[in-house]
Amino acid sequence: MSQDRNAPGAEPHDLVIHRLVRAPRATLWRAWTDPELLKEWWCPKPWTTEVRAFDLRPGGAFHTYLRGPDGGSSDNPGAFLEVVPQSRITFTSMLLGGWRPATPWMPFTAIVTLADEGDGTRYVAKVMHADQASRDRHEEMGFFDGWNTCIDQLEALARERAPG
Amino acid sequence: MSQDRNAPGAEPHDLVIHRLVRAPRATLWRAWTDPELLKEWWCPKPWTTEVRAFDLRPGGAFHTYLRGPDGGSSDNPGAFLEVVPQSRITFTSMLLGGWRPATPWMPFTAIVTLADEGDGTRYVAKVMHADQASRDRHEEMGFFDGWNTCIDQLEALARERAPG
Repeated sequence: MSQDRNAPGAEPHDLVIHRLVRAPRATLWRAWTDPELLKEWWCPKPWTTEVRAFDLRPGGAFHTYLRGPDGGSSDNPGAFLEVVPQSRITFTSMLLGGWRPATPWMPFTAIVTLADEGDGTRYVAKVMHADQASRDRHEEMGFFDGWNTCIDQLEALARERAPG
Repeated sequence: MSQDRNAPGAEPHDLVIHRLVRAPRATLWRAWTDPELLKEWWCPKPWTTEVRAFDLRPGGAFHTYLRGPDGGSSDNPGAFLEVVPQSRITFTSMLLGGWRPATPWMPFTAIVTLADEGDGTRYVAKVMHADQASRDRHEEMGFFDGWNTCIDQLEALARERAPG
């Protein structure tokens, strides 16, 4: 697994993760789109996720609030931009629910795609930025470690629910 | 016509214009969605509009470049967020085509709605901002004069094309 660097073919301002996840696509989709399941894998443990809004439609609010064991926290308001059932979810920190502009501490749009591959699922997360500085800052904050850990947690949850 | 102040009921961070335009809705829709017509009314004359991108679908690029008679210019990249034929167009300066984050000089999302009213069309432009400072800066730059002048130009163009 390429967990610590950008996937081949990524555009300069993007951070891209390609993973082959050993779980069925429908199970991953459910773990992504049911907030009660999402909160179990959305941030690296022992941090916890509170899902404050999850309106899964274009322009719907997507807001998570993360808490760390040391009292730290991270507030992440945003919105869904595009939802293709079982296949693709696009969300951004640039807008809030109802398309209102946000003032993000980390400006990005993420496109997550799921596709069948063998017995598992090809999981691709493409995270786009406005410029190189913003992309590099995201990487330096531990993007690859963080997002890959979450995908590990997603895979573990999905296999627990649909062993195969 | 309330051309110089916010429409009643506007939320605190919004700038809202309500106009009754004396032209059929279908004609206004065409003048909005055909770039060759859009460029005739999009900015207050004698400034001119170059339409650099007009991909009228969610996530499609919407990019205009304006030029003034004194050599001034204004570059306005953005994207469409939602398109409901004959009824509503939502666009933003916060994202570019393909949902990539932008670095806007004026962060906003605009929702333009058209509805039949009598022999004409109720034209509402709701322009949303992230905070009060951004909204106030937009107003101080001449928002109401500018947008209302453009709607006057749109009305004149539509009546020329579909007198009634």
